[in-house]
Amino acid sequence: MTDDTVADLDAVARELDRAHVFHSWSAQSQASPLVIASGRGCRVWDHAGREYLDFSSQLVNVNIGHQHPAVVSAIREQAELLTTVAPATVNLARGEAAERIVARAPEGFRRVFFTNGGADANENAIRMARLHTGRDKILSTYRSYHGNTGAAIVSTGDWRRVPNEFARGHVHFFGPYLYRSEFWATTPEQEAERALHHLRRVIEAEGPTSIAAVLLETVPGTAGILVPPPGYLAGVRELCDRHGILLILDEVMAGFGRTGRWFAFDGYDVRPDLITFAKGVNSGYVPVGGVIIDEPIAQTFDDRVFPGGLTYSGHPLAMASIVAALDAMESEGIVDNARAIGETEIGPALADLADRHAVIGEVRGEGVFWAVELVADRETREPLPAAAVGRIKAALVERGLLPFVQDNRIHVVPPCVVTAEEVAEAMAIYDEVLSTALEGES
Amino acid sequence: MTDDTVADLDAVARELDRAHVFHSWSAQSQASPLVIASGRGCRVWDHAGREYLDFSSQLVNVNIGHQHPAVVSAIREQAELLTTVAPATVNLARGEAAERIVARAPEGFRRVFFTNGGADANENAIRMARLHTGRDKILSTYRSYHGNTGAAIVSTGDWRRVPNEFARGHVHFFGPYLYRSEFWATTPEQEAERALHHLRRVIEAEGPTSIAAVLLETVPGTAGILVPPPGYLAGVRELCDRHGILLILDEVMAGFGRTGRWFAFDGYDVRPDLITFAKGVNSGYVPVGGVIIDEPIAQTFDDRVFPGGLTYSGHPLAMASIVAALDAMESEGIVDNARAIGETEIGPALADLADRHAVIGEVRGEGVFWAVELVADRETREPLPAAAVGRIKAALVERGLLPFVQDNRIHVVPPCVVTAEEVAEAMAIYDEVLSTALEGES
Ligand SMILES: Cc1ncc(COP(=O)(O)O)c(C=O)c1O
Ligand SMILES: Cc1ncc(COP(=O)(O)O)c(C=O)c1O
Repeated sequence: MTDDTVADLDAVARELDRAHVFHSWSAQSQASPLVIASGRGCRVWDHAGREYLDFSSQLVNVNIGHQHPAVVSAIREQAELLTTVAPATVNLARGEAAERIVARAPEGFRRVFFTNGGADANENAIRMARLHTGRDKILSTYRSYHGNTGAAIVSTGDWRRVPNEFARGHVHFFGPYLYRSEFWATTPEQEAERALHHLRRVIEAEGPTSIAAVLLETVPGTAGILVPPPGYLAGVRELCDRHGILLILDEVMAGFGRTGRWFAFDGYDVRPDLITFAKGVNSGYVPVGGVIIDEPIAQTFDDRVFPGGLTYSGHPLAMASIVAALDAMESEGIVDNARAIGETEIGPALADLADRHAVIGEVRGEGVFWAVELVADRETREPLPAAAVGRIKAALVERGLLPFVQDNRIHVVPPCVVTAEEVAEAMAIYDEVLSTALEGES
Repeated sequence: MTDDTVADLDAVARELDRAHVFHSWSAQSQASPLVIASGRGCRVWDHAGREYLDFSSQLVNVNIGHQHPAVVSAIREQAELLTTVAPATVNLARGEAAERIVARAPEGFRRVFFTNGGADANENAIRMARLHTGRDKILSTYRSYHGNTGAAIVSTGDWRRVPNEFARGHVHFFGPYLYRSEFWATTPEQEAERALHHLRRVIEAEGPTSIAAVLLETVPGTAGILVPPPGYLAGVRELCDRHGILLILDEVMAGFGRTGRWFAFDGYDVRPDLITFAKGVNSGYVPVGGVIIDEPIAQTFDDRVFPGGLTYSGHPLAMASIVAALDAMESEGIVDNARAIGETEIGPALADLADRHAVIGEVRGEGVFWAVELVADRETREPLPAAAVGRIKAALVERGLLPFVQDNRIHVVPPCVVTAEEVAEAMAIYDEVLSTALEGES
């Protein structure tokens, strides 16, 4: 192809998109998205060869990096053998994927229910919790995102819930977030203690025996990478145990390497009853998600029909990609890389950035899961206005970095395979943009 | 591999499945599913080479047949290029897939919102209808299946809804089904007229201005392949128009060739406002579904944020498989084959079977979408008891036919590429099983 025809492909792609594709979570006339045609590791390209350093991992899902050759090969091989099969069959790739997933879960977790993504993983975990306990209510936090379907969107706490409140049995509470504490706390210990007090009061006031489960992102992601303070998750577990309430940990974004651990909860003294996953399990190479089920709950459905299911549960292409992704993450030490690079590169570099840019109010995170809070004023912690955040985002893209920008925050969330050099490259871009994009602001 | 090691693979697959895989819609201790390792056209095989003639199309989704080489190639090529990308990007395969889908929809439909399957397609169509109309209620039929997530499962009419009623704003009514009329009707005309009268009364009694949409499977599938009587769908459209109610047609199972037409509604005098699809669009080779949106509804979200979305909306692998599947279906005349084979082979053969087996109460369908109702008594139409149906199902599998059995019915639903020879082979098996499996029944 000549340079002309490949450049044309970008134009054709843009035109088809504008004419025929309806986009998620946006006003359709405002969307002016980038063309992405190919990728490798932490880089993606459009048809004309314009390169971007992907510090978004797309929607924080490409943990293993773009186009990992072993995962691509596994998909190609399974495609040759059998692309699709009904869930009510036995398929070897499915059993192998489930085996690898439970091998990383706490002892006693033995079974996996596969879905197509994170939303229906949460839907089915909620279903299991309700039927196992015989109770209705699901408690979740205001600062959370759990997916776009019926129960998942009403479990969600952020603005996306509000136009979608058509499910019953959901109650919201406030989780810990010291930088913007809902509890007038000033230390992590105080934040944990007060957040637990608040949850205990909500449970008491709702009626403990009406509550099936507490549903939490182990580390709330889209809401701001809110690393829980020491003692919080253990305290939630204790409250749940006291009242026969199940604990569902949503590891859709935080799981499978993002925090530098297989599961984010491995870093805390907590054992969930149900674990939901998607994204990192196969880096989204094929749509998939699921629920890892502790045995007491799985056994509820040994002789009783589980009233949930979907056509593509345990889809062979997805299963083959999980097997290959988890094996490669293990053998190539990809989770360890995420931990180490977070400790030695990203953390220090962001701290340094915060030292030099007053617009940064706080930096927090671990592994390849970091948030940079942009503020108009460090004292008041007033979020940087949307227009300024928009200028920063545009300037980052302009300089060839694909950022993840949410509200007044930049989430620094590269693939788990990111190298020290790539981190340095990204930090130089963040630095330059924070120095120049706000020039002329009052 | 020796015969021993391949036979072992079946055993290994079964063991991993029993240990680690939690299955849809079933009591886990009862599941004893078949191993399926590979497929081609209308055939599938286990590891030991045991062959089955697939007259289920798995979950009525493999319209193009198993392992169509052009679709497999397209998946392999896209896997090489780019497996996954965020929805808020432009991707050429996505635009090409959307273009091909709208090309088959009625004039005026120009945009597609992609989801992971049928359930979330319906979730998002319901969301669009509610936000476009500013009304809450969704009317759907008792004899229906729309998926397993929050709103989709409560729209569903069958038993699967009952343990899952956690969504509000859903009302159910009875649709036409002459063989088991809810309206004491004796002719198709009377059934259509009375079913419309019933719907009109439900709309009036619910309050027309509270109703956002009527959601209907064009031909209810899992509920029994209930081909609507002449005039019914046009009458529903008229009722909707009279009251500013939208019509969502669920073409997840009936669409993309199953009835011998691109859309099932192409056979009726009706134009929907929203069309949901999944399954046949790419035969389930990669999980995908979506909503085709008429322009007035799409335009509601031109300047207003659409509050719905998902990580894998417009997933490149799924998109590439749609492009290849629709192109192959077109160029190989696969939809025409489904129509012709239904008219000249399946229809006549099933009529003949019904003539010779008193256990068949009714046969109905079109294309590769047929139901055979098994009854204990032709006069009373009492359904054949579950135990006898179970024996028939086991005997069909025993003879190498993968059947789709639902309640007291055999759904005869092979891939759209099925040949006259394969139909003859299947019919001989149905014939033999119906002759012998019920021997000794009173
Ligand atoms: C924590 C969490 N849960 C659930 C979801 C929903 O996943 P999906 O978009 O695959 O439905 C997301 C998506 O971002 C998420 O971050
Ligand atoms: C008519 C209809 N709608 C929706 C669905 C749900 O699709 P999925 O299983 O992909 O969620 C099905 C599945 O069988 C269906 O037949």
